[in-house]
Amino acid sequence: MHTPPAPSANDWSPEEFRSYCQQVSDWIAGYLAGLRSYPVLSPVQPGQIKSALPASPPASPEPFAQILVDFERVILPGITHWNHPRFFAYFSITGSGPGILGELLAAALNVNAMLWKTSPAATEMEEVVLDWLRQMLRLPEAFRGVINDTASVSSLCAMAAAREAAGLQVRDKGLSGRQGLPRLCMYTSEQAHSSIEKAAIVLGIGQQGLRKIPCDHHYRMDVEALAQAIRHDIAAGYRPLCVIATIGTTSTTSVDPVAAIAELCAAHGLWLHVDAAYAGVTAMLPEKRDLFTGWEQADSIVVNPHKWLFTPIDCSVLFCRRPDVLRQAFSLTPEYLRTAEQDQVVNLMDYGVSLGRRFRSLKLWMVMRSLGTSGIAAVLRQHMSYAHRLGDLIAAHPQIELVTPVWFSTVVFRFRPPAVPEETVNALNARLLETVNHTGAVMLSHTVLRGQYALRLAIGNLRTTWEDVELAWRTVQEQAEKLTTADLG
Amino acid sequence: MHTPPAPSANDWSPEEFRSYCQQVSDWIAGYLAGLRSYPVLSPVQPGQIKSALPASPPASPEPFAQILVDFERVILPGITHWNHPRFFAYFSITGSGPGILGELLAAALNVNAMLWKTSPAATEMEEVVLDWLRQMLRLPEAFRGVINDTASVSSLCAMAAAREAAGLQVRDKGLSGRQGLPRLCMYTSEQAHSSIEKAAIVLGIGQQGLRKIPCDHHYRMDVEALAQAIRHDIAAGYRPLCVIATIGTTSTTSVDPVAAIAELCAAHGLWLHVDAAYAGVTAMLPEKRDLFTGWEQADSIVVNPHKWLFTPIDCSVLFCRRPDVLRQAFSLTPEYLRTAEQDQVVNLMDYGVSLGRRFRSLKLWMVMRSLGTSGIAAVLRQHMSYAHRLGDLIAAHPQIELVTPVWFSTVVFRFRPPAVPEETVNALNARLLETVNHTGAVMLSHTVLRGQYALRLAIGNLRTTWEDVELAWRTVQEQAEKLTTADLG
Repeated sequence: MHTPPAPSANDWSPEEFRSYCQQVSDWIAGYLAGLRSYPVLSPVQPGQIKSALPASPPASPEPFAQILVDFERVILPGITHWNHPRFFAYFSITGSGPGILGELLAAALNVNAMLWKTSPAATEMEEVVLDWLRQMLRLPEAFRGVINDTASVSSLCAMAAAREAAGLQVRDKGLSGRQGLPRLCMYTSEQAHSSIEKAAIVLGIGQQGLRKIPCDHHYRMDVEALAQAIRHDIAAGYRPLCVIATIGTTSTTSVDPVAAIAELCAAHGLWLHVDAAYAGVTAMLPEKRDLFTGWEQADSIVVNPHKWLFTPIDCSVLFCRRPDVLRQAFSLTPEYLRTAEQDQVVNLMDYGVSLGRRFRSLKLWMVMRSLGTSGIAAVLRQHMSYAHRLGDLIAAHPQIELVTPVWFSTVVFRFRPPAVPEETVNALNARLLETVNHTGAVMLSHTVLRGQYALRLAIGNLRTTWEDVELAWRTVQEQAEKLTTADLG
Repeated sequence: MHTPPAPSANDWSPEEFRSYCQQVSDWIAGYLAGLRSYPVLSPVQPGQIKSALPASPPASPEPFAQILVDFERVILPGITHWNHPRFFAYFSITGSGPGILGELLAAALNVNAMLWKTSPAATEMEEVVLDWLRQMLRLPEAFRGVINDTASVSSLCAMAAAREAAGLQVRDKGLSGRQGLPRLCMYTSEQAHSSIEKAAIVLGIGQQGLRKIPCDHHYRMDVEALAQAIRHDIAAGYRPLCVIATIGTTSTTSVDPVAAIAELCAAHGLWLHVDAAYAGVTAMLPEKRDLFTGWEQADSIVVNPHKWLFTPIDCSVLFCRRPDVLRQAFSLTPEYLRTAEQDQVVNLMDYGVSLGRRFRSLKLWMVMRSLGTSGIAAVLRQHMSYAHRLGDLIAAHPQIELVTPVWFSTVVFRFRPPAVPEETVNALNARLLETVNHTGAVMLSHTVLRGQYALRLAIGNLRTTWEDVELAWRTVQEQAEKLTTADLG
């Protein structure tokens, strides 16, 4: 039994901590080993978890054993298992062993890395590990990294820096009601992630100020259309600020022609931000380097270790070639945060929105050391080889077709039985996704491309094997077959 | 020895996980029990940690044992121990046992709570636990909570909602170059946290658009000055959007007169955001309720469980009485995030900047259950009683004076030996802080109030005892005595 807190022993004793932590550790070891026995997608109904939890907080302390029991009994059925080797939805991610223990240590230290002084190791570790990552991705030395929670925030910061770089005194004077300040605009492709549009809203650029440039047949930004849009906007009195290109878009993992975009940006003095949140890690592989041509000319790049670098969520890295501008956009030092050494050190609070900062670099350090760059490269190649192998199987299938090429580790496909009229194919595919996910064996997600509903299977979990991918493929075929028989046969 | 990853066993085996996790668990149990033996402030020099880490990432996998050794050897000396019972700087925080294990479980599940579907339990747990917190703080039912990483982001979101609530179509049209859109402005006190100014910069309001209203002698916003500023701005053609009041300012934990400010906001149709990141939890105590009068009329309120609710960083709660407006400011649903049940459930990605969301409510649930509301109240009262007791000792001291009343658990004071000329008192206090922190026994921080340098001692760690506070007080006196003797005697 847990003893209610006494005045001088509010927290657990070391023995209690050790015992409870061991219970949790055993549970996790079993969970990770047994993940394949769970349905990937939680089968609960809306409101089910809520109704199983007490409506009010407990007045008295409750024993930890009871909390763990409720975790398993009430919470676990409502979990969609992102750490499952057959979670293939959105982008597949991994809470790896070393990453999980990195989070455990960070929570125990509980430092706030806002200032160098408030934990020199957390700041210097972040600098060192992100420089490791920079070297691994073969980015020039000028790029400095900083960790944010998510790519949404990393891109917001990059776009704020772009706004600042224009020399319009936005930081000081704001944007509205200013004589002579034109409408501002930014450019991205119609396939860009929704976080880019959200950032444009937050920054006061507005949805109208974000131009969504059309794409070519492979969903890559059309550079000629971009050039025209910029020229048109300038002629119409707009002030273009930046272009956001994507290496690995969300729907299809397509890759914008970054080199050509960089050239345009240079010609017009625009900031270039590259969203490589998912695919950026593959820049370490010589055979993928051609997809990254020109990204070294970007002003900023986002790469998320919590996506395809086996690090638990959250950990998003913003690399910036002009950290001085990022600092200029965000730095504010009230008296209570001034320190004697502030001119000799980096205070990471100066490079983003949040003052408080968890010790996120610790888990990344533990993951990079545990796997080594060779281990990381091997896993990335493994995932991509699975994706290509699956792509080949789909290409050879009479009724299921690939919708886009396999660029990295995500496969986009569509059930297209010849007998079915085109107008019902979308509904059929939506039903297929639903039935596949309801088996619990795997989880996929979807997108719509030029009006066509398509399924996405993204490979990225450290524990995924070819057998897992094969099971997914078998499930898709079985469910497709059933649908055909039941609904169309 | 750790075996390099083989194609089908990229992550640790269950046995490895269990064994490594137990090593980490043992280390943490010892760390928490032995924290008082560490110097609170890290004594390392700038660059020291960096130079002890390899300049490049390892190519090959490294054994976990080696990583743990390096953690202790290289990282630990560079840690400023925020979890130390004698960390009294900034605002004292706690990584409590249940909070740490909550983080451990969240990292192992590694779910992303962006959509209800992507982990129903994470979304519904967040709704339930924040409603527990709402009840505990006696806020009206209309307030809905959402978790962000930090108060910086919570306040940014609140201020973005205020901008949206003005009906100026900022989301769609942006702010710049618009005919007829006046300059916008927001109001806060000169004692507000720097994150408010940073948010004004990000949102395109600009530093000039944020009016810093003067305070009374106790550092509380002067409501008459606020009323005048609003009238003056309206007359000058500005469009006021919102007021940000603070309950528990960073320097002195002063409390703005929220009821009077709420009245003004109602009269002018302004959004009222209350920053109660630190002190908000004390709204649960009847004896502190008078300091919160009027906050229930706010449109939004931020309270940080990672500050004074024993939950590891990060966990900041934004309560909003008009969640529809928050949603209107932020909601964007690209095709790949559409789900069948989206109209029946809450998708938390709709209420803030970040799409990706960790399962942060889990640790808060574990902390609230482990302590119970009675346990939480007891600890808060204990901390405040220590602060008042220390305040009394300082008030009785001939050479050290209280600079402000003790409102909650933070004590602000100043060494003021009668023999020392006023112009050297600031330097003397800066030196005092430095020497006190260099003992390693305790860590305090500072502020400057009306030109006077003052020391801050903030109590908030779950494991802090009166003996810890007493040791801090003894250290301050001893160092003050030495300074007087050495430099002035």
